[in-house]
Parts: sequence; C-alpha cells; structure tokens
Amino acid sequence: MIAVINISQLVTLSGPQRPRTGPAMRDLSIIENGVLIVRDEKVSEAGNWDKLAGRIPENAQVVDAGGRIVMPGFVDAHTHPVFGGNRADEFEMRAAGKTYQQIAASGGGINSTVERTRRADEGELMLAGRRYAGWFIRNGTTTIEAKSGYGLTLEDELRLLSVIRRLNDDTDLDYVPTFLGAHAIPLEFEGRTEDYVDLVIHKMIPKVAEERMAEFCDVFCEEGAFTVGQSRRILQAARKAGMKLRVHADQLTKGGGAELAAELRAVTADHLEHTDIEGMSLLRMAGVQPVLLPASVLMLGSKQFPDARSMIDAGLAVVIASDFNPGSSPVPSMPLVLSLASTQMRMTPAESITAATINAAYSINRGDQIGSLEPGKTADFVIHDCSDYRELAYFTGIEHARAVYKSGRQVFQR
Amino acid sequence: MIAVINISQLVTLSGPQRPRTGPAMRDLSIIENGVLIVRDEKVSEAGNWDKLAGRIPENAQVVDAGGRIVMPGFVDAHTHPVFGGNRADEFEMRAAGKTYQQIAASGGGINSTVERTRRADEGELMLAGRRYAGWFIRNGTTTIEAKSGYGLTLEDELRLLSVIRRLNDDTDLDYVPTFLGAHAIPLEFEGRTEDYVDLVIHKMIPKVAEERMAEFCDVFCEEGAFTVGQSRRILQAARKAGMKLRVHADQLTKGGGAELAAELRAVTADHLEHTDIEGMSLLRMAGVQPVLLPASVLMLGSKQFPDARSMIDAGLAVVIASDFNPGSSPVPSMPLVLSLASTQMRMTPAESITAATINAAYSINRGDQIGSLEPGKTADFVIHDCSDYRELAYFTGIEHARAVYKSGRQVFQR
Repeated sequence: MIAVINISQLVTLSGPQRPRTGPAMRDLSIIENGVLIVRDEKVSEAGNWDKLAGRIPENAQVVDAGGRIVMPGFVDAHTHPVFGGNRADEFEMRAAGKTYQQIAASGGGINSTVERTRRADEGELMLAGRRYAGWFIRNGTTTIEAKSGYGLTLEDELRLLSVIRRLNDDTDLDYVPTFLGAHAIPLEFEGRTEDYVDLVIHKMIPKVAEERMAEFCDVFCEEGAFTVGQSRRILQAARKAGMKLRVHADQLTKGGGAELAAELRAVTADHLEHTDIEGMSLLRMAGVQPVLLPASVLMLGSKQFPDARSMIDAGLAVVIASDFNPGSSPVPSMPLVLSLASTQMRMTPAESITAATINAAYSINRGDQIGSLEPGKTADFVIHDCSDYRELAYFTGIEHARAVYKSGRQVFQR
Repeated sequence: MIAVINISQLVTLSGPQRPRTGPAMRDLSIIENGVLIVRDEKVSEAGNWDKLAGRIPENAQVVDAGGRIVMPGFVDAHTHPVFGGNRADEFEMRAAGKTYQQIAASGGGINSTVERTRRADEGELMLAGRRYAGWFIRNGTTTIEAKSGYGLTLEDELRLLSVIRRLNDDTDLDYVPTFLGAHAIPLEFEGRTEDYVDLVIHKMIPKVAEERMAEFCDVFCEEGAFTVGQSRRILQAARKAGMKLRVHADQLTKGGGAELAAELRAVTADHLEHTDIEGMSLLRMAGVQPVLLPASVLMLGSKQFPDARSMIDAGLAVVIASDFNPGSSPVPSMPLVLSLASTQMRMTPAESITAATINAAYSINRGDQIGSLEPGKTADFVIHDCSDYRELAYFTGIEHARAVYKSGRQVFQR
C-alpha cells in the first residue's frame, strides 16, 4: 500500500464515465494539497490532505511528492513502436531539401522501413522496442496503442504483433495492439493493390483474429495508399472478425476518410489535418473520437495542423497522441505533444491533458480502467517535477517526470 | 586523467580557428571508433582507436562510451535564464486565443516578469536559476550566454548580473553575462523612453562596466521597444565602456536592426525572422554572426522562421540558440532546437550541430576555448545515447545526454 502526500495539484480527471467534450475538457478535477492512496494496484482514495490525513493506513509506504503535481500516466493512443532501423538518413535528406514524395519515389518512406523490418530478427526488434519503451515511460506515458504495419506479409505482420505482445509482457509499458496490415502497398504488390487488399482480408485478418493478436484494425486511407472503397472492405472484414476500428484519415489530402470512419462508426479517426466542418459533424453524430497528431505535422515541416478548436466546439471528444514512428514522427514525448497542442492548435493545457489521458483511454477501450485517478482504477500515475500542471505544456523539450508508477509500482525515478 | 573509448562517432568539429561558413558547416570532423583523452581539464588527444589504443596512459580512468557518440557540450548563445515566477498563465491565455499584444496591453508580457523579478529576493532567483541550470546540463549544454533584462532599474539589473555570476560560480554550467538593460521600457517610464535610454547610458552602463559585470551589451531593437536611433546610442555607449555588442533584430518586424548590427560591427544579430538578402549581405560584410532562435518562433505559434538557408548560402557563420525565457521560449533544450532547425529551417543535422557548438562558441568570444574537441581546448563534452549524431535532431522531445563532462569532470549521468 502506498500513500502519496504533499501533492500541490492532484490532477484526478474524475467525472462521468465517458469521454469529455466541450467545456468539460477544461475541468481536470484538481485536488489541491492532495493525497493519493493506492491499494492492490488500484487507486483506493484520492482526496485533500485535511480530509485524508487521518485515514492513511499505518502500514502504507508514504511517498512525499515534495509539492509537485501528480496525474494519471499519459495514454498515447496512436503509435507505431516496432520497426527495424530508423530513418535519420531521410530526415537529413528532407532537411537538405528533398520532399517526402521524392524520398518515397527513390525507395525511401514507409517501404524502406518495411524492408529493414523484414530483415530484422526478433531480438533486434525487441532491443529497439525496449529502448523506445524506456523513452515513453521516462516521459510519463504508461499505456500506448501500438500498431503493426511494417511487415506487410502475413508472417511479418504476425511477427510484429507478437513482438508487441512480448514488449507488453517484458516492459513496464502497457501496449494495446492494432493490426495495420493496410499501412502501405508493399513493393512486391506495386500496381496490384487489389491483390494486396485481398491478402489483408482473406489471409491476414482471419489469422490475426484467430490468434487474438490485435484488438483494433486500422487502415491508411489516403491518396497513394488505400482508397475509401478498399479501406471500407478491409475495415468491414476486420469488424466481422471481431476487431474494433480506427482509420488514418485526411492526413495529406481530404480523401473521404473521416466520412468512412463515421459511416463505419469506427472508434477513432486519426490525423484529420484536412477534415472540414461537415466531416466533423459526421464524426460527432457517429460517436467517433478524433485522434490528432501535431508532432507529425511539425516533423514533416507542414503548417497544416488539424483544426482542434472547431472539433472541440463541435462537441468531439478530442484525443492527442504522439504518432511515434520512424518517418513522420520520431517523437515519443507526450509533453511535447501537449506543448504543440497549445502553441499550434490553441488547445489549453487542461484540454490537452484531458485529450492525452481520459479521452485517450476511452479511445483504446480502456476508459473504465485508466486515464483518471479515481477509486477502483489502475494506479498508473506520475509525479511530474512542477507545481502547476500548466508547466507540462509550457516548459518544452525537457522530461518532466520525476517518478512513474504502473499499477502502483514505481517503474521510473529520476 | 580520463580516456573515453568505444565511441561510435567522436564529433570533434576540429578545423580552422574561425567560425565555419558555407559547406564547412557540414564538416563535423568525425572520428569513427574514437578515443578522447583528457588531461588537466583539457582535451589532450582525440583520435581513432587503432592509432591511440597503445597510447592510453596507464593511470587514466577509462570511460566506455558503449558505442555511443561523443561531442562537445552545446554552447547556447542566447538565453534569459534569471527571472522571477513564470508565465504559464499567459501561455494558457494565448492557447485560449489571446494575442501576445493583447496580453502585453493587459499588464502581461516582459513587464509582468519584470514586476515579479523585482519582487523576488536573491534566494528565490538562485533557486529557480539552479533548476534551469540543471535542465541545460541534462540536455547537453555546458555554456550559455546569459542576459539580464528583467530588472530595468540600476539596482535590479546589477542584482540580476550578480545572480548570473553566482550561478556561474555555484553550478556546473558556465555563464557568459550580457547586460540587457534595454530589454523593454519599464512601466514607470511609459511615454518617456528617451529618459529611460538616458538612464541606461548614463547610470547603468558605467556601473556595469566599472564592476565588470558583463562582457556584452544587447538591445531589443524593435517596434514597441527601442528605435534604431536609441539602440545605436546605447550600443555606442556600451562599446566605449568596453563591452562587446549583440542586437535583438528584426524579430517581429523588419526594423533596421540588422543594418544597425552591421554598422556597429556587433558580434551578433539575433532573431532575424524578417531580415532580407540585403540585410544578410551587410551582416556578411561586417562579420556579424546571426543567432537564430527557432524555438521562440514555434512557441509564439508563428510560421515565420528565419531564412537560415539563405544566410548559410550568403556565407554567414550561423548560430542557433534556445532563447530560453519565460515568455516566448520556455525551452532550455538544444536538441529540440536542432530538430526545429532541420524541420523548419532546412538546416542539416551537421549544420545545426556546427551552429550550436563551434560557431556559437565564437559568437560569445570563446572560440579558442570551447565548441570543439581539439588538443588544448577545455574538455566540455557529452556522451549522447545514440550511435549516429543525426539522431540528436531526429528523435525529438527526449533528453539524449547520457553523461555530461565539464572541464573533464562528470557533472551529470543518467
């Protein structure tokens, strides 16, 4: 049993058992001079010192937060954390003036990572995966949604999902697996996209479902990747096989992805840089959560951030995530994402934190377990080295977490 | 004596004893499988393992870099690291839609920090200063240029410079002090800017010079701050008093600051978001170094990054720096600045590293002592947790430094 005391702001995010929308996104349910009591891996009580001081069990291990804030671990609802090699070389080429499209045309882009991932053995993928898991945790993230998508053969996709499962078992980070066989058209299927779609639908999805390797299925619905029609077929097959749905939509062009997500009542539509008010309205009516990824916009040098303000005004339960991946977002830091949300998308620090915790938890079907600090929830929490939660978004480029707890157990300390 | 071995890339930046320009900015003089030998706080030898393995002194403490890179500590040539309070509240207001100008008009902006700084006692300023020093060091910075400018009275400016001196003595970070009495027009001088300029010239500069509290004098030459004429008077007085010159120029408008820096042969012209080719040409002819500050552009939500590419093409010895300050850039991380330089200003990772080390060292008059790892130079170096220097700019939002050495002494280890 643990009792964390001397908490300047205990950011609980307690409230109704549903994703937060509109003005509710600014209400973090903060308890000043807070105490957090943890029992059997769960939050037992979260309250004010004056109320709880006399009720701290004698056998509790007392942790002094030193006047710092405590909040739920970040839930990063969109990552691609398993891949071979990295693309620092392409990053350099882009800086030297090449476009993403030129680099893809010369054998770079997603398919270059696919090639290196296929060549990598499981040990190499685990080693890299552990390194990235450490970065997530150091930055206060305790759960990530993790996509496959750099294998693009039945065997390689299964291998990636099995690495994700091993990372979930072997590291202190929780992984929620998503099958993304439709991430790109592999080189060997060039000009035969429909054949690859058939492979995804008839070979990969049944096997992934049979072995229960993924909770979600995602598709990259975009010009140059999969059309709306192809994406629909894949997602419908995944749903039939028992998976929940996510869609990469409207990242580089307005291509109908948001409408498709609404039509299929996907759990999330991700990116949405080019989604208009009509698209937002459809998402709202269908109960789809937008997952916004400002780090990939920044890292691609684009100025086109998604219109978070309109989405919040439209009543959407906005989520923000890192999009960690070797191409467009080598960014594992949720505090940096919070900062970008405030400076580039006009989300207040409170809205950003809601989007990165409780709303994100609902978007990966874990809203009843994580994302807030309420009695009965898993005790995934972080002591950040500041006394005001707004500093998380404000002081930028540093690692704020001073101690990270997963299921009540300390897994990181600075 | 120390011998660092097993270095994947020893990024020495050795070369001619002058700031690097043009294609030379891409030459980091990297030694693969490197060895760095340190004796009496200085670099003794930097070379390849095959050459130096037999020459490692028996009494040397051997440090195994584990296949990681080693490079000089970052030199951050533009910071405002001593201030009372912070402006997380204004950061939140901007996210909620207020402009920087509206916030300044309602009592916010630089003058709100001036008010809190004047009220803060030296203990409070030292405590905050030490916290920020820790952030700089953790992120691989070993020397910063440090400006006053939140006092704006004779006593308060001297107090800030004395805190900078104490931080230099008490922390592991080196501070190079700059007097920035002309940072803003204090509220009590509203409508009487000329009177304040007179105060700076006739009271502050003589005293700062007499007590040798600053090596440089800087002026915020900008609409709403100091005109070109006022800036010229101040800088000329500072030069007469023995200080070298820096200028905040062309940040928000093209206001003649770059031309003034060239006219006065200032050491640096800083910001330059609105400087045109003619301005660059004048800077080039006058030997002025541009100090570019992309983090403040990002944090203000502006899209107008300085035109680094044209500056490099024009033969300018470009520097990049954090602009760490509580208003426009609460960013102490040079790796984040490197990343922004690549993604927003098309500087390659190599150019960015040159701009953040050897060129920065020259811009604070320390080019003969720091900024490269060559025999005789101070042994300020960092082991970063990557095997390829490009990862520093590529993996973004994390703290890369694994160990930091100042004058050959380890001052940080993760």
